[in-house]
Amino acid sequence: MNKIKEISGGVCAPKGFRAGGICCGIKASSKKRDLALIYSEKACTAAAMFTANRVKAASVLVSQEHLSGGVLRAVIANSGNANACTGEAGLTAARRMAELAADLFALSPAQVAVASTGVIGVPLPIAAVEHSIEALGNSLRGDEAGHTAALEAIMTTDIRKKDGAVEIEIAGKIVHIGGMVKGSGMIHPNMATMLCFITTDAAISREALDSCLRRVVARSFNRLTVDGDTSTNDTVIIMANGEAANAPIAAAGADRELFEQALESLCVKLTRAMARDGEGATKLVTVTVSGAQDEKSAETLAKSVASSSLVKAACFGADANWGRILCAMGYSGAEFNPSEVDVSFASAETGGSCEEIAVCRGGASLPFSEGDAKRILSREEIDIRVKAGNGSGSATAWGCDLTYDYVKINGDYRS
Amino acid sequence: MNKIKEISGGVCAPKGFRAGGICCGIKASSKKRDLALIYSEKACTAAAMFTANRVKAASVLVSQEHLSGGVLRAVIANSGNANACTGEAGLTAARRMAELAADLFALSPAQVAVASTGVIGVPLPIAAVEHSIEALGNSLRGDEAGHTAALEAIMTTDIRKKDGAVEIEIAGKIVHIGGMVKGSGMIHPNMATMLCFITTDAAISREALDSCLRRVVARSFNRLTVDGDTSTNDTVIIMANGEAANAPIAAAGADRELFEQALESLCVKLTRAMARDGEGATKLVTVTVSGAQDEKSAETLAKSVASSSLVKAACFGADANWGRILCAMGYSGAEFNPSEVDVSFASAETGGSCEEIAVCRGGASLPFSEGDAKRILSREEIDIRVKAGNGSGSATAWGCDLTYDYVKINGDYRS
Repeated sequence: MNKIKEISGGVCAPKGFRAGGICCGIKASSKKRDLALIYSEKACTAAAMFTANRVKAASVLVSQEHLSGGVLRAVIANSGNANACTGEAGLTAARRMAELAADLFALSPAQVAVASTGVIGVPLPIAAVEHSIEALGNSLRGDEAGHTAALEAIMTTDIRKKDGAVEIEIAGKIVHIGGMVKGSGMIHPNMATMLCFITTDAAISREALDSCLRRVVARSFNRLTVDGDTSTNDTVIIMANGEAANAPIAAAGADRELFEQALESLCVKLTRAMARDGEGATKLVTVTVSGAQDEKSAETLAKSVASSSLVKAACFGADANWGRILCAMGYSGAEFNPSEVDVSFASAETGGSCEEIAVCRGGASLPFSEGDAKRILSREEIDIRVKAGNGSGSATAWGCDLTYDYVKINGDYRS
Repeated sequence: MNKIKEISGGVCAPKGFRAGGICCGIKASSKKRDLALIYSEKACTAAAMFTANRVKAASVLVSQEHLSGGVLRAVIANSGNANACTGEAGLTAARRMAELAADLFALSPAQVAVASTGVIGVPLPIAAVEHSIEALGNSLRGDEAGHTAALEAIMTTDIRKKDGAVEIEIAGKIVHIGGMVKGSGMIHPNMATMLCFITTDAAISREALDSCLRRVVARSFNRLTVDGDTSTNDTVIIMANGEAANAPIAAAGADRELFEQALESLCVKLTRAMARDGEGATKLVTVTVSGAQDEKSAETLAKSVASSSLVKAACFGADANWGRILCAMGYSGAEFNPSEVDVSFASAETGGSCEEIAVCRGGASLPFSEGDAKRILSREEIDIRVKAGNGSGSATAWGCDLTYDYVKINGDYRS
């Protein structure tokens, strides 16, 4: 029996969390929701990871400060404006956002994290947030509707809602983890940014929470790659309020491993959803490399293949141009012997069994049916399977195809 | 007076070189030229640089062997087939190509370099080369028509012919340098590959030729960047036959400096032509970074901006989305202070003066006319000018916009 059970409810699935989202007018023209709040009734142990970009949004700088204490009660987030490259005024606006949310519940601003996503370089209209802060507080609900309203309020070019929740049992207590994500760190970063908020009612030490998050992000979101641009705003925050009343998860051990597995299954689900919803994407492309020297090499190879513009364009065109896969491996910087490489394409029909076609063995071409390859590569989910040699390293990376619509969406984003 | 004079004739401008190109049938469907030869009547001092990709075409491996002696008489090149990922048979075919060309003039095969460009992973039809080798020899001419036929025979998705030649005077003797290039190393590598053949009648030591080539390539072709894919076949070869009878250029000194300047002016011209002819490109984008910590930082920043999919798409859409420029600088890995960055866009009207519009100062937005920015960004040559701080490092990188046609060309290249 699988110990990790998928459930509904998103960030409101764990006990003691409420969420909401409203339209405050930052996305002035569209009247779409643009301001979100996630709130915990009890103080949370918190951990977070932020963009590696040297240019960091004001909201990221402020959240980094606030997270230094490791305790949070709420996250306030807006879409429609990244509050990046906005100077001192941007920092003041980000601090004010945290303060406005804190005042709703008589908290210290340091217990509130801030996140933003949208256009860079335009001042954040903080007055719009001020005018709507009470309405935002009133929008909070402890059910899936609250979760969905908050999720809608952080979406920009996202087409699909990307969320999930799981349930596990730890020493007789039911523990929930729920999450929402928007954008995709490396697919459509500038406007899109990846924002991910995860809640859990687990009782867990800050150290354990932090190390679980870092390990899981390394194997999920950080293996999502596509156009190579890293946003100024990327943020992943996890808050654990302990309401499940489990024996606190600390150091190593079976409980921590199960929690980490559950968190990974949720984050991989969110990662795949982001790849599938990449700007203009028509296909989810999963690249699995095995037989590499070690896991790091396998990851480097898989990410290089998944992020090659030529491989991505070939996936769009359902063209079994496997030479581009070897080419992308070759410039990745990872060591391997080209004459030991096998490549195949695979895909499952909806509800059907998985079909696989080998196209390259020992670094050279195999005869294969172009018709079969075309049929497999025309499906919505494509697996590129690479055996890089006889090592023990394996890793999976996720991406999407490169399409006309990517160019269209990004050619006139601001207009 | 400018010491470097542009002239016509391409690789046949220097004395003692002949070139030709024919259709041998590798590009079976199109009946276009696909086999080229460049030949020197006298033995040449030669230097070359090859792809950094771990997966190297058979032609690259064979040319590396042949170049180890530093002496060449000829280069034979084909388009329509990359002869990469073709195993032992590919190596045999590449060696055979060199041998066939050598036999025409009773040379040793080691005096012939080989280059290929086209689809990866398909066996090279060497019989087609064998059947046509005499016709190839008979096609050689010492004039511009020979140069053009050879150039046409190495083109794949290239739309424009990219070539040039310059003349300088060294101690009373006229020295010529001529070149041709196809593709663009980083713009359309897989199918396109960058192949560049340069001839000169200068008398120059191998050491001086080699160091000039390396320094010039670092400042020209290696600053051309776009989709980030590095081909399995990239090759730059320079051959110097000494027919100008100048006092041989060696070590340091004014003669060597002038030769290097002339070579750089030719290579920058070829680089710009490749960027302008990038797959699907409608615009040449030149990114100049000044004020960086040092030249290396400036280069890293300029290349990161020029290769950002989001910046490229914004150039296509004539969208003055300068935040994407700061974002691309931020993830480049180079150090700088975001709050010291100024950005402007500039472009010259055809035959007109250069118009410049400042959009960012000190890392934050400046008020600017969207209409003026749109007009400037709608021209065929766009300059992105970045002041990264108060350092002394500056560098220029070249790229192109990302368009619907890039996706179209690469979505079904093999069909």
